[in-house]
Amino acid sequence: MMEAVLLGTGGMLPLPDRWLSSLLVRVNGALTLFDCGEGTQIAWRQAGWSMRRLEAICLSHTHADHVAGLPGLLHAVANADRSEPIAVYGPPGTALVVRGLRTIAPYLPYEVRLTELRSGDAFPMPGGMMGSCQEGEHALPVLAYRADLPRNRAFLPERARERGVPIELWGALQRGEAVRWEGGVAEPNEVLGLPRKGLSIAYITDTRPLRELATFAAGVDLLVCEGTYGSDEDAAKAEKNTHMTFREAATLARDAAARRLWITHFSPGLDDPGVFAGNATEVFAGAVVGRDGMRGVLAYVDV
Amino acid sequence: MMEAVLLGTGGMLPLPDRWLSSLLVRVNGALTLFDCGEGTQIAWRQAGWSMRRLEAICLSHTHADHVAGLPGLLHAVANADRSEPIAVYGPPGTALVVRGLRTIAPYLPYEVRLTELRSGDAFPMPGGMMGSCQEGEHALPVLAYRADLPRNRAFLPERARERGVPIELWGALQRGEAVRWEGGVAEPNEVLGLPRKGLSIAYITDTRPLRELATFAAGVDLLVCEGTYGSDEDAAKAEKNTHMTFREAATLARDAAARRLWITHFSPGLDDPGVFAGNATEVFAGAVVGRDGMRGVLAYVDV
Repeated sequence: MMEAVLLGTGGMLPLPDRWLSSLLVRVNGALTLFDCGEGTQIAWRQAGWSMRRLEAICLSHTHADHVAGLPGLLHAVANADRSEPIAVYGPPGTALVVRGLRTIAPYLPYEVRLTELRSGDAFPMPGGMMGSCQEGEHALPVLAYRADLPRNRAFLPERARERGVPIELWGALQRGEAVRWEGGVAEPNEVLGLPRKGLSIAYITDTRPLRELATFAAGVDLLVCEGTYGSDEDAAKAEKNTHMTFREAATLARDAAARRLWITHFSPGLDDPGVFAGNATEVFAGAVVGRDGMRGVLAYVDV
Repeated sequence: MMEAVLLGTGGMLPLPDRWLSSLLVRVNGALTLFDCGEGTQIAWRQAGWSMRRLEAICLSHTHADHVAGLPGLLHAVANADRSEPIAVYGPPGTALVVRGLRTIAPYLPYEVRLTELRSGDAFPMPGGMMGSCQEGEHALPVLAYRADLPRNRAFLPERARERGVPIELWGALQRGEAVRWEGGVAEPNEVLGLPRKGLSIAYITDTRPLRELATFAAGVDLLVCEGTYGSDEDAAKAEKNTHMTFREAATLARDAAARRLWITHFSPGLDDPGVFAGNATEVFAGAVVGRDGMRGVLAYVDV
């Protein structure tokens, strides 16, 4: 199971009624934060999850509205008694910015392990997820992220019984280990079902809807994608400012064959994003216009 | 006239229902901001004043809860079309921190003029105020600020008439200039009343209530002072953490003979600061427990 909270949905400036765009993902109790603008720690507190289990922060890019909340958040996590390391990922240039911001968070009770990623890099993520990233097109280097949670193959108890495996050895087989007992041996392949589709989420913001990004996000259960402009009339503005309209985000989701789309990162000039929902759902029925604090649970679909 | 808005009242961490402590002062349309923690730009937006006329930012010290909002605010002010310089003041160490934070606000349409102040320094402030500062006692160098708005001497029209000054020259005399006309001369002293008390405000936070601070804030119309802890039982904690209790803040205000006291910078553990108001008003009747967005107008008292 993966849980996601859209902590905020704003772009450029935090507003009294709209936090900056940021996504929190929980898997097996471990937390990953995507982007951290000014106020993200407050939005997080409203969401109610403890900060102690934050294990990784994935930064899309170093524009202030995506990173300015980092020092405050690091303090807040320290305040929540974390002592284990936190991994911070971002595109080239992130180290310089994190170093600058940490002039006001120089001493922390845990280590901050920073990695600048290159497009195509894979990396381990909290809760057993596998991370990958893909460059977008923006004024600064920007990365889209994807997190995949693999699913174990089903354990088939009737097979184990047929093979006469003592029940106390079933757990090892489930974990993929071969077992041996008085009178027999068994391999995991003999008692496990076919490979099963896991769960996946992609986070794409501050970029044009490149074809490579649709490939990158192929088949994800949840695509969280920017839609800075709701109206189709802002298509030229979206292109000029290297953002997307709702329609472009929906087209990306459709091309990626995502299951669901949450649109986020609204321009401060977009007072009521919901008004433009039709521009997205016309293209992709699984599109939802994001709201601050919106939650989703991704669960395995049993085959 | 001086107007003040207490943008926030929190210390250490911004909370969903409490912005970090920060004060905005307006004189003759020009704005001065005291401290800028994470979220200050949002609190400011709620207060409704345009950001374009921000002319100076006075930072008490460089702990994150007092400065982390700086880069976001600088962007927001740029967004409000400011092009004239902004002065930033702070204690020694401020330049390093502002440089670090500006890694995410490197290009602005106005100049940021930074000055590190030493205790006792005087400096010009927006709207014709005179600024001064005094060191406090905290884990880092910290400055208390005072802003004095001088008041013009009254113009006495009956005296000007007696001296036969043509009415078109009265303005120059009011501005303190000597005038000459066909058949006469006049000096300002001949037509102006006695010197009059101006208006003043002091901002004191993140320090112990040093005796020097009471002297520094002597006779101010409004003292905005931290009271991190409401209960008298936290006096030892206040001393250890170099903060103040409400009672200590009130004692400082009484010793300074301030007219009014606004208490701010509450510990996140202080759920309902109002409960402890009595600890302050017992000592100083002009004490008020601050609330986010609280406003005050300081007007001349005519003698």
